[in-house]
Amino acid sequence: MSQDADVRAHHRHLEQARAQVIDLLSRQALERELVSRSENRRHDVVAQLVERQHQAALSQRLAQFHPADIAFVLESLAPEPRAAAWALVRSDQRGAVLLEASDTVRRALVLGMAPEDISAVVHTLDSDDIADLVSSLPEELRHAVVERLDRTDQAEVRSVLSFPDGSVGAIMDLDFIAVREDTTLEAVQRLLRRKTALPVHTNELIVVDRSNGLRGVLDLQRLLLDEPDRRVAEVMNPQPTYFYTDDGVRDAITAFEKYDLISCPVVNLHRQVVGRLTVDVVVDEIKERAQAESLRQVGLSEADEDLFAPLAASARRRWPWLVLNLVTAFIASRVIGAFEEVIAALVALAALMPIVASIGGNTGNQAVALVIRGLALGQLGPLQLRKILQREIGINLLNGVVWGLVLGVVTWLLYDSVTLAAVIAAALTLNMVLAATVGVLAPVLLQRLGRDPAMGSSIVLTATTDSMGFLIFLGLAAAFLS
Amino acid sequence: MSQDADVRAHHRHLEQARAQVIDLLSRQALERELVSRSENRRHDVVAQLVERQHQAALSQRLAQFHPADIAFVLESLAPEPRAAAWALVRSDQRGAVLLEASDTVRRALVLGMAPEDISAVVHTLDSDDIADLVSSLPEELRHAVVERLDRTDQAEVRSVLSFPDGSVGAIMDLDFIAVREDTTLEAVQRLLRRKTALPVHTNELIVVDRSNGLRGVLDLQRLLLDEPDRRVAEVMNPQPTYFYTDDGVRDAITAFEKYDLISCPVVNLHRQVVGRLTVDVVVDEIKERAQAESLRQVGLSEADEDLFAPLAASARRRWPWLVLNLVTAFIASRVIGAFEEVIAALVALAALMPIVASIGGNTGNQAVALVIRGLALGQLGPLQLRKILQREIGINLLNGVVWGLVLGVVTWLLYDSVTLAAVIAAALTLNMVLAATVGVLAPVLLQRLGRDPAMGSSIVLTATTDSMGFLIFLGLAAAFLS
Repeated sequence: MSQDADVRAHHRHLEQARAQVIDLLSRQALERELVSRSENRRHDVVAQLVERQHQAALSQRLAQFHPADIAFVLESLAPEPRAAAWALVRSDQRGAVLLEASDTVRRALVLGMAPEDISAVVHTLDSDDIADLVSSLPEELRHAVVERLDRTDQAEVRSVLSFPDGSVGAIMDLDFIAVREDTTLEAVQRLLRRKTALPVHTNELIVVDRSNGLRGVLDLQRLLLDEPDRRVAEVMNPQPTYFYTDDGVRDAITAFEKYDLISCPVVNLHRQVVGRLTVDVVVDEIKERAQAESLRQVGLSEADEDLFAPLAASARRRWPWLVLNLVTAFIASRVIGAFEEVIAALVALAALMPIVASIGGNTGNQAVALVIRGLALGQLGPLQLRKILQREIGINLLNGVVWGLVLGVVTWLLYDSVTLAAVIAAALTLNMVLAATVGVLAPVLLQRLGRDPAMGSSIVLTATTDSMGFLIFLGLAAAFLS
Repeated sequence: MSQDADVRAHHRHLEQARAQVIDLLSRQALERELVSRSENRRHDVVAQLVERQHQAALSQRLAQFHPADIAFVLESLAPEPRAAAWALVRSDQRGAVLLEASDTVRRALVLGMAPEDISAVVHTLDSDDIADLVSSLPEELRHAVVERLDRTDQAEVRSVLSFPDGSVGAIMDLDFIAVREDTTLEAVQRLLRRKTALPVHTNELIVVDRSNGLRGVLDLQRLLLDEPDRRVAEVMNPQPTYFYTDDGVRDAITAFEKYDLISCPVVNLHRQVVGRLTVDVVVDEIKERAQAESLRQVGLSEADEDLFAPLAASARRRWPWLVLNLVTAFIASRVIGAFEEVIAALVALAALMPIVASIGGNTGNQAVALVIRGLALGQLGPLQLRKILQREIGINLLNGVVWGLVLGVVTWLLYDSVTLAAVIAAALTLNMVLAATVGVLAPVLLQRLGRDPAMGSSIVLTATTDSMGFLIFLGLAAAFLS
């Protein structure tokens, strides 16, 4: 067993070490705070010494980490200790760390650096990674960084930056190995042996014709399994999945998920190979999209996650949805206002009406969740949509009748009015059915209008079901109770 | 360009073809329906002929599809045409199709087959895939299928089935190539050349010692790039990321995302290699989890997606959350009930109270979304948690004051009462701060209690903020307005 010590899971190891670093850093920050609090100008020599020791230990620790782990540590620190920790990251690791960091943290780190430092850091990266990195920087800084690159890198970075967000071109990897189909496997092997490493995630070589047009892909396995005198054309896959630079990332994600891909050629409009899309980038996209979506549903954006952004700016960022919420809630309030006389005559109505609204809200949100999921999977043709609508109406009619009766009985026992009981039972059923209908149709409509169906859907929907709930319940009450 | 015709993106091609198949099948279903409607016992010879022609065309089309595409088509069909389409799938493709299908559809398809047919289908699969497949079957059927396997497969399937859901062992791939570290690369190449194909997603060979203990991994690249007389030990990675069979899938997902992995060795408690975890399985897990989570938040499960499950069963499945919703809404109603006299004196209160409740609900849901996301990323230590809590309180205090004032002014203009305006402004601010606090703490508390923090969180939270909103607003009104 002791022999095995060197191969123990370094990710477990890292988890522990990371906790220690975070601990060290927060202690450091605490000490710094204590020093500055004790007296602003007095430099405590002892505290400085302690800090320097910590820093040396920390710098060494950090150097052993995977860039993704360093990024993780940086992300969980407040701006001041974060800057301190960033100063301790070795310069040859900085580029990789920036790539792994979230947009907000990346921007904060880069904005604190001099343009020549940024260029030095960026120099260690591939041009597609540089493009990824600078794309999240402010316009001026972007230019400053790109201009300092050498000419080839500049051209490549500019070309990647020219692809719109959400397109395959914007996230592709420019680094790939191309071979010709009339070459023998032996010649390909000789070609490879001249290199010290292949581009990351190279599970296949791309087969091209004279004008760089895509002909197929050659799995690395074939080089190992087949006879060296065979030609590429004989053993390649002539019909690989591939993407155009202007294909949507969403479609690429679907293809990777379905066909279990590792990497795919990316071609331009003339079917010339210009890059590759690799599974690691796709995994990052899947993760980011899933996270962005859960925030979007409640009207938040990823920027809301930056725990150290100025409070007032974060507060203001929530205004659009808050205002929408206020306006819709106000509309609901006016609906109630229209029935003030009915309520004045029977105050019990005021107490009961939120039950109808609340159940409607949850019913509608369930329908929305099902439809958004179906839309994301591309499974909602007109046939399926009608089916979902029928089902949601059916389910909620059934549940509305069953639980409306229960609620009716409770109301009858409580308020001793059969009419009131009947009104609330009917209102509950009706509002559930209507909420289900709106819940199914609203996201579909949003998508047809070219909007994001998930965007703030829970806010819009709850507002609608609230107003409807009050209207139905109070309307029925006005008709049958007055 | 015409030369390139054979390499055009087959996924685009498939999209079109798939639409045609769905179209064909639904037309077929329609025709069948028309036939059975026109007269139940009369067999329309012409219609039958048309159908047979359709079937032959369809069967051919399906055979060209990727199993994932066939599964997709089957999933979007109603049970009857689905069974018809399933009958047209070639038997050698059926296993792969079942693997790609969702749990509910898979179960439906398998339940319609005779046990000997299932065994025949299953025979074409690897034992880990068999385990994956039978794990979603009812207990009796599972036994029946496993018993028909040959002895090695039986043992392997039983071993995979013994790992709990959500553990790496349950989703690992048993198929891998192991080599010894004192072998030369040339010998490894010879070993490989005896095989016709490597296990899927083999980007590295696993290096083991005599007792099958993990020693490292050998990237396939090294076989192509390094001199054939070098030994495995010299060029292998001696410190690969690896997993234990009882590691959580969630941890594995994090590691794959962070370290951009393609495949990793899986070891048992004695550090012996027992399998591999590959990125395609991880991608599927990420996707499933993201989807399951968005449904769970509104109290739905994946079973709710089966558009063709019996309606009554689906309706009943929603009862637990519906009842919880009813009970909490009823509590909110009783809160209002306690203030009936205050409302009777000033009916405007009934109209205004839902505004306070509604804004509280959305505020709380925003806090919940941020915390759940932080928890999922493992970024919420005690420090971060305090920070989030402080920020959410700060942001909502600020926004509460600003928009409370606006709402106050509108109320004053509408109802001409300064006191009422002050009451609603104060209630809005207070409820937003309280909702933010509950929103942050509730998911954390749920997780501490060992519960899933996402489970029905939006239902629980909205209920709480509703009650609080009514209590605060009506309480303040009772104190200052009567």
